[in-house]
Amino acid sequence: MAAQIRFPGLEAALNDWETLLGTEAVTRDAERLAARSRATFATPNTTLAILRPADTCQVRRCLNIARRYRVPVYPVSTGRNWGYGSMALPGDGGVALLLDRMDRILDYDPELGTVTVEPGVTQQQLHDFLREQGDHFWLDVTGSSPHCSVLGNSIERGFGHTPYADHFAHVSGLQVVTGDGTVLETGFGRFENARAAAAYKWGVGPYLDGLFSQSGLGVVTAARLWLMPKPEAFTYFQVSIRDDAELEPLIDALRELRMAGHIRSAVHVANPFKVYSAMESYPWEQMNGETPLDPDIVRDHLDRLGIGAWSFSGALYGSREQIRVAKKAIRRRLRASLDVCQMRFMSVERLTTLERFKRPLGRLTRLPLDQMLAFMRALFGIKQGVPTDAMLPSTYWRKREPPPSDPDPDRDGCGLFWCAPVAPLKGADARTMVAIANEVFARHGYEPMLSMTVISERALDNVIALHYDRDIPGEDARAMTCYQELLERLMDAGYYPYRLGIQSMETLRARSGKGWNHTLARIREALDPDGILAPGRYPA
Amino acid sequence: MAAQIRFPGLEAALNDWETLLGTEAVTRDAERLAARSRATFATPNTTLAILRPADTCQVRRCLNIARRYRVPVYPVSTGRNWGYGSMALPGDGGVALLLDRMDRILDYDPELGTVTVEPGVTQQQLHDFLREQGDHFWLDVTGSSPHCSVLGNSIERGFGHTPYADHFAHVSGLQVVTGDGTVLETGFGRFENARAAAAYKWGVGPYLDGLFSQSGLGVVTAARLWLMPKPEAFTYFQVSIRDDAELEPLIDALRELRMAGHIRSAVHVANPFKVYSAMESYPWEQMNGETPLDPDIVRDHLDRLGIGAWSFSGALYGSREQIRVAKKAIRRRLRASLDVCQMRFMSVERLTTLERFKRPLGRLTRLPLDQMLAFMRALFGIKQGVPTDAMLPSTYWRKREPPPSDPDPDRDGCGLFWCAPVAPLKGADARTMVAIANEVFARHGYEPMLSMTVISERALDNVIALHYDRDIPGEDARAMTCYQELLERLMDAGYYPYRLGIQSMETLRARSGKGWNHTLARIREALDPDGILAPGRYPA
Repeated sequence: MAAQIRFPGLEAALNDWETLLGTEAVTRDAERLAARSRATFATPNTTLAILRPADTCQVRRCLNIARRYRVPVYPVSTGRNWGYGSMALPGDGGVALLLDRMDRILDYDPELGTVTVEPGVTQQQLHDFLREQGDHFWLDVTGSSPHCSVLGNSIERGFGHTPYADHFAHVSGLQVVTGDGTVLETGFGRFENARAAAAYKWGVGPYLDGLFSQSGLGVVTAARLWLMPKPEAFTYFQVSIRDDAELEPLIDALRELRMAGHIRSAVHVANPFKVYSAMESYPWEQMNGETPLDPDIVRDHLDRLGIGAWSFSGALYGSREQIRVAKKAIRRRLRASLDVCQMRFMSVERLTTLERFKRPLGRLTRLPLDQMLAFMRALFGIKQGVPTDAMLPSTYWRKREPPPSDPDPDRDGCGLFWCAPVAPLKGADARTMVAIANEVFARHGYEPMLSMTVISERALDNVIALHYDRDIPGEDARAMTCYQELLERLMDAGYYPYRLGIQSMETLRARSGKGWNHTLARIREALDPDGILAPGRYPA
Repeated sequence: MAAQIRFPGLEAALNDWETLLGTEAVTRDAERLAARSRATFATPNTTLAILRPADTCQVRRCLNIARRYRVPVYPVSTGRNWGYGSMALPGDGGVALLLDRMDRILDYDPELGTVTVEPGVTQQQLHDFLREQGDHFWLDVTGSSPHCSVLGNSIERGFGHTPYADHFAHVSGLQVVTGDGTVLETGFGRFENARAAAAYKWGVGPYLDGLFSQSGLGVVTAARLWLMPKPEAFTYFQVSIRDDAELEPLIDALRELRMAGHIRSAVHVANPFKVYSAMESYPWEQMNGETPLDPDIVRDHLDRLGIGAWSFSGALYGSREQIRVAKKAIRRRLRASLDVCQMRFMSVERLTTLERFKRPLGRLTRLPLDQMLAFMRALFGIKQGVPTDAMLPSTYWRKREPPPSDPDPDRDGCGLFWCAPVAPLKGADARTMVAIANEVFARHGYEPMLSMTVISERALDNVIALHYDRDIPGEDARAMTCYQELLERLMDAGYYPYRLGIQSMETLRARSGKGWNHTLARIREALDPDGILAPGRYPA
């Protein structure tokens, strides 16, 4: 009812959309809309309708209808943006433009390793496709679901694990529909006959792709992506250092190794809570049903496994000789300045052997090898571009019941906020971020799960997960308070998030330079004069 | 006089600019203006005045005056854009905003290797600064003059030689003044207290840097740049293959080596004219004063040196062990499929030894070792980030007199066009580009000097130089006709230039998608409503 008052043209727009797309591609059913407006935290708006266009032409015509009736539309790739708002809409609500039906792989160059995908192409789909094509190139995947959109993550500037971890850096052109209904190709793709459209990123003249990443300035209907050449050899590594006090030299050592080219991919540094939760469920019994988790329980468990205060994992990619040289340099550099309590390098062959002998080895070592090896196999896969749903159950961390066989955090009331501030790749900055997170979480009664990712030679992305149980009355509000405080404290200290959840879109404006806000607002008006495309999404 | 009619506010604007900047920072002298309106080819306009602001605030106020009186201004960093228009203005002329007085290095992070520079900072200046700071990081230089602007080349998306060859890819934020007088910082720099402004490229929300590269959308008054960590070891290599017919497998081999990470930097593949002209002046005597150069003379000369149809050079950067592994892989891969007639890997130590014994060695080998080693020393330097003016004399190729001790191609009537089309990194595409260049140049009576640069795992940039003598009547027009035909033929075949000279700004519009043109035009109107900033520079 309120929607009719705010958007008087809604009903007429819905009729036009139904005529354009067919009724089966327009969701108006209240229950289904409510379900897809749920996220892993409290969301204020119910999506008014879901439109599912089949191609770029339909997207353009959907926007034209939106303009005619002044109803805002929000593009969504597959709607699995967990921890950042799932498929719920930011701002004051509107209609979702769900692009999951646009799921074609439009072209593939087996020499250059380039591919053009639509927004509905999932990690699993592209991975399967590349396998079918002979497994010459790998996708860089995120740890999220196999059913997440590849394009969506790329233009949201997500990151993964391999040397191609920076997803937006490996985009070489977009097809975009802007708010005024214009369809454009960026890069050399703007020339119909260009040979290097997929091969070269910048094109000629202004480079426009960046405008359409983390923005509401356009609906991206296709993206050209670069894929990682499959290396001759691969070695996974995991290292653990004993003392918390050595976080600073550890981060500095990783910077040196990355700058020297011994490590060329993302490295994930985890705190004990993160390591524990990756292997164990919340120990409700031991904790007598209480929260937050006692750090001593975590410590005891990790001690038994020989795991120290900070652990990190990564992988080496290249020829056997390249890997041998890198391994030696990493070993030497880490042992030189750190109290390393565990350092394992593992090829696929060695993991397979361990798996074969896990029973006798388990008895011998008294370690839960089953569990450890299963988890390691998933990590191996992720670092080789194999999507996995092994991480999804971790969203059930604070739930009393174990995760179901078909996990769906939105449906099941799994509370989750991601907060991902970026710092310079320096030990002192890592320490400051960790201290802020620990202090805020402790005060609010949550256990901070930290995974700091070395995403480049110079930057560290601290991905902080706040898990809670949405079914406990009052927890939605308490967790939101904790999250907001965490974000504000981090920004006060100079650590800004690399991306935003739908609940935080307004938090940057006051801190942002006036010139930037003005410029973005002017661009927005120019490309979307009626203000119908994703208002409130990364606004000025 | 014509200028007064076209820009009735010019005189008043000049008075205001003089009041703002002081008369010594405003050039109105006709002779000096004519000199700085000259390029290495015919340019139709004389710059109406040159303004030299000292800081960002003055830039902003210069633009405000330009708006008040509707006089267009064109930012220029140091005005050494040789081959693409030097300091002459595109479009119908206007006032140059020369930023050479803004020459401060604003900050430097010795751990992360980041630096913030103003537009007037030259390659030599930054190189000297880094040496003073302990030589921990290297600049990636172009082969142009030591006095060229680092920032200018970066936002024009130029490229160099090392693993940091793609200059714009190593920019992590800009300070910009837009046509409406707004000052903004991009990336995380938009937040005053951001810790990762220099360390992280994308910031949060839309990434705007690309808008201000190759564009007239803003005056870039500072740029944050990433510098290359100085490697433990360095090895230069040059390779020559005998047969022209092997160009295709050569390019494909380079792609494989680059994709496998054995080569991580730019590789420059040169044709015989290019190699010859790098070592010799035009053999006027032997040619009886005729042009174009007889290929047989080139062939004879190169045969004596053992140089084949295609030669390429590059370098390896890393630890001694990394380099050893790469060397082995390169040797093996090239020898496996190519008729290699020369393959030299050379460390700094080995070059120094050769230099010491060049006299006896020269007598023994009957090679012009003096010349060869001097040239190699310059190439070594370039690949280590040492700026050089060793390339500048080559702009005098078609001049009858040898280059003076203070070369200045604009002053001395050296004719030069660069045309730099991009292709996918595939042998067949390289062949097509080369065939087009050869055919067009032969028909017009010039010798094509080709240097194809492997600028990434996927793209090849064919830098084609057209040299002529501007002092020969009619040559300006003849060379321009040749250049235009070359560019059109290449674009017809799908090979578009990575950047444009001032004479070609209008050539793309008709080939470019309507949606792209419309979108860029809308952005331009939004950021520069009075159309006073660099109209005609990379227009829609």
